[in-house]
Amino acid sequence: MLVKSRGDDAATLAPFRARAAFRAGDSATTAGWSNGFAQANLIAVPRQWAYDVLLFCQRNPKPCPVLDVIEPGTWTTPLAEGSDLRTDIPRYRVWRDGVLVDEPTDVRNEWTDDLVGVLIGCSFTFETALAEAGVPMRHLEAERNVPMYVTNRPCREAGRLHGQLVVSLRPVPAAQVATAVTVTSVMPAVHGAPVHVGNPADLGITDLHCPDFGDAPVVEPGDVSVFWACGVTPQAAVIASKPPFAITHAPGHMFITDVPDRHYRIF
Amino acid sequence: MLVKSRGDDAATLAPFRARAAFRAGDSATTAGWSNGFAQANLIAVPRQWAYDVLLFCQRNPKPCPVLDVIEPGTWTTPLAEGSDLRTDIPRYRVWRDGVLVDEPTDVRNEWTDDLVGVLIGCSFTFETALAEAGVPMRHLEAERNVPMYVTNRPCREAGRLHGQLVVSLRPVPAAQVATAVTVTSVMPAVHGAPVHVGNPADLGITDLHCPDFGDAPVVEPGDVSVFWACGVTPQAAVIASKPPFAITHAPGHMFITDVPDRHYRIF
Repeated sequence: MLVKSRGDDAATLAPFRARAAFRAGDSATTAGWSNGFAQANLIAVPRQWAYDVLLFCQRNPKPCPVLDVIEPGTWTTPLAEGSDLRTDIPRYRVWRDGVLVDEPTDVRNEWTDDLVGVLIGCSFTFETALAEAGVPMRHLEAERNVPMYVTNRPCREAGRLHGQLVVSLRPVPAAQVATAVTVTSVMPAVHGAPVHVGNPADLGITDLHCPDFGDAPVVEPGDVSVFWACGVTPQAAVIASKPPFAITHAPGHMFITDVPDRHYRIF
Repeated sequence: MLVKSRGDDAATLAPFRARAAFRAGDSATTAGWSNGFAQANLIAVPRQWAYDVLLFCQRNPKPCPVLDVIEPGTWTTPLAEGSDLRTDIPRYRVWRDGVLVDEPTDVRNEWTDDLVGVLIGCSFTFETALAEAGVPMRHLEAERNVPMYVTNRPCREAGRLHGQLVVSLRPVPAAQVATAVTVTSVMPAVHGAPVHVGNPADLGITDLHCPDFGDAPVVEPGDVSVFWACGVTPQAAVIASKPPFAITHAPGHMFITDVPDRHYRIF
């Protein structure tokens, strides 16, 4: 599924140019795109489900840190000037009654005036900081999407929403695990510190090489499995909870904002 | 209004004992009570306003970091075992159409099955850490409530809710301002770093000695005015936005939880 159309150029592409590429139909994963700018997960639901979603996010702040909420009848956000959330994400997922029914690159026809859009922090936002701290980003070096897994950890329920925690994996050399923890812990709005280090089985992950979303991991000898809470968690909740309708991004195919990564560092 | 009934004993009182005292009718401010345990602001609104409140909190995370949301028909929280939010706060405020109509010590008769309760982080939670770092807490030394001010800064609107930012003031010796910033910046769930340092007029505060809520400040020579976002901000929004009904705590009269302060340190 990885269509990395721009190679190294993507890393330095201004966010508005990246969004324009996606608006024009590019369906690449955004891993490694527009370095230095925050990326975001999307879940849009009918207004009658919006309170449940916000409450789910409040009760599960590690996977679901809310960056912005988009009012019904609109489809842009102050996080990205001139953006259109219906077109500017490279690939979407459309859900009916908890079933994935389509993966289009444009949802102008599906985005009704009744939808509330919720933008949620994405771990891609701390990858530049990790790389600058000397932590190798295995998936970026291999030009892959990050691997993501549905765990055995239930989220805290909220109204009609329930489901399991989803995590992203970055294999990290043992000597750099502490650096990976400290660098990300100062960015709680984009998932913050890892939720788990070192034992995939403890999260119910039986085969690290078969992630539920994204690409298989690249694991080097001496790497430790470091797991961060992931903004795909609302999609697991959609599957489990079956709201009548939802639109999300496709995992790893994010909304690229104009907000510098450092904005989400608490210091 | 300060009825500090327990003196130094209050500082070491276990949270469940503090709640029991308030349930029995003690109406003291909780400044300096139960050191080491998180305190919380309360706003409870009818279910039809709950989405607006959550959205207001999401859009104004500095004054309104949400710690827990209490379902309609219930009045307890996992943050405080055996608690009853209708009785365990020393003093409440009851609001109708944005007008303060009562300040009781018990709201069992007012708390209808339709109410959603939102607990919001409180700056009292970082005062033990500040004191341990050597930052004098002038209001505690004087056995006063913290001074709070309605500023000229509008909050970001959310649905039907709008209003000005409210801040708390702690005068800090100039040499310790940086310490006050770093100590609190690692506790974003209880307001985090200050929003303003050094120039009250810039916030529209014309007379520091006449706060809008709480007690007058104690300012020593060489102190700098350090302002933190305050969980009384939703009350300013209630006054400005006039929801049909709301229950809040009275400023400085907080809900004392069983959660250790350090739980809200991100490291």
